[in-house]
Amino acid sequence: MISAPGAFLRLETGLPHEAALESVTLACIQFEPVVGEPAANLAAMERLIRQARADGASIVVLPELADSGYVFESSEELARLADTIPGGCSAAFLCGLARELAIIIVSGLAERDGETFYNAAMICGPEGYIGKYRKLHLWNQENRFFRPGDLGLPVFETAFGPIGIAVCYDGWFPETFRQLALRGAALVCVPTNWVPFPENDPQREPMANVLHKAAAHSNGIYIACADRIGTERGQPFLGSSLIVGPSGWPVAGPASADREEIILARLDLSQVRAVRRLNDFNDLIGDRRSDVYG
Amino acid sequence: MISAPGAFLRLETGLPHEAALESVTLACIQFEPVVGEPAANLAAMERLIRQARADGASIVVLPELADSGYVFESSEELARLADTIPGGCSAAFLCGLARELAIIIVSGLAERDGETFYNAAMICGPEGYIGKYRKLHLWNQENRFFRPGDLGLPVFETAFGPIGIAVCYDGWFPETFRQLALRGAALVCVPTNWVPFPENDPQREPMANVLHKAAAHSNGIYIACADRIGTERGQPFLGSSLIVGPSGWPVAGPASADREEIILARLDLSQVRAVRRLNDFNDLIGDRRSDVYG
Repeated sequence: MISAPGAFLRLETGLPHEAALESVTLACIQFEPVVGEPAANLAAMERLIRQARADGASIVVLPELADSGYVFESSEELARLADTIPGGCSAAFLCGLARELAIIIVSGLAERDGETFYNAAMICGPEGYIGKYRKLHLWNQENRFFRPGDLGLPVFETAFGPIGIAVCYDGWFPETFRQLALRGAALVCVPTNWVPFPENDPQREPMANVLHKAAAHSNGIYIACADRIGTERGQPFLGSSLIVGPSGWPVAGPASADREEIILARLDLSQVRAVRRLNDFNDLIGDRRSDVYG
Repeated sequence: MISAPGAFLRLETGLPHEAALESVTLACIQFEPVVGEPAANLAAMERLIRQARADGASIVVLPELADSGYVFESSEELARLADTIPGGCSAAFLCGLARELAIIIVSGLAERDGETFYNAAMICGPEGYIGKYRKLHLWNQENRFFRPGDLGLPVFETAFGPIGIAVCYDGWFPETFRQLALRGAALVCVPTNWVPFPENDPQREPMANVLHKAAAHSNGIYIACADRIGTERGQPFLGSSLIVGPSGWPVAGPASADREEIILARLDLSQVRAVRRLNDFNDLIGDRRSDVYG
């Protein structure tokens, strides 16, 4: 992690010079987890992760709450499905897979910490467990089951460069991506379960896609969103997973609204510095008027 | 103005209860100012403002630097074109027109303050001058001619509700709209001179439109962007003026890339509060994790 207060100040005007920024193939896995069926969900995740690896991916992103499903009937149901990170079954399984395949995996997971539950995401790599994030902004009924995240917005140093994580409704807050960019992230992975918003219209792109294009552009970062599909206990999900480049335009996707899919893109994380430098006078991060923002 | 520090805190979770929030017709005027021809520009602005009034508009937004044009050859040229606000010729002319037509006018103007120049915008209404804003984030060669804004991000109380102003490249900084929303703005007027960005493609919408849809949605506010058209001393502009509703979708426009146009929309500023309240648990402003954003 490079998100200590000292690092934050050091990174105010750009990326850390010492960070490795590499070219890498990233996959977003869009699939349909089934609530209450963690074994089946892990099996589906393994099948798709192996496919993504065979397709050349070195970083694989999976949806929010990929192991547990999303629409819980009760706290008791969530308690049966959630587990510790990294000690629990889902976390250990994914860490083992990341080691075996020598890839980075970012996945949403239901986390138990004693008698407290978090809508969490874990990142692991060829060396095993790297770290976790707990969703800061809880959506709707999640507030009944989960405690809001208490780990801030960490940035994880990896072989390919610094990676941040956000989950679903976190993306409605521009501060999420701005803070991750200021803390040095060149790529933000977004496990998500997007649901229809008011004025959602299947004939046009979801507003979620608009938000992430804008966030990638205004921060000059890559953003990789892996959404789920299907309808669970009456709640439909939007699919439309996408990988956005630092110019704000998709480099893969959006995926379909309703089909299991793997979308792949070659990312050049070293581009991030260049994209932010717009001309002789302007830098997307350096031009911030933090003296005014309050 | 309601942007005093005390008001800022009071408004952290929403709009001021005492603010009038009314239904109103707004017009964005897209036209081609000519650099160095302020008299001709004011004549064009008057013709189009009177047309917008005849079309029913009570708020009219004009482009950035509408009186002076944009691409200056030298500081001497800008010095000949810029004037004081509200005492100067352009400002007095627009204040008189707003009084006569009993409307609110927001326009970009080149401002002189002693020997200092600002890329400014003025708001005036049926009672005359209301206030001004000075562009915080200067784009490219503007840095050679203008001093960065030193008036913060004021919000102006009007008969229709609280209105903020941003100018062009200000919109690349999510903090601009967030701060204006936190300070109570229900509508942000954006005089602009959008230029092509890297990866701009005439076959798709400009990234500027994506940014303003995202900003309107994530803050639950109206945003009205009045852009210029034409090519000035080799610099092309994008047109594509638009008025975005608090859901993030356009309620008028985007306009063409190259034609003089007036786009009109009926705004219901009272919607802003309701749009932000997403369900029993979530409020787009109240859900901010200011404890984490640093």
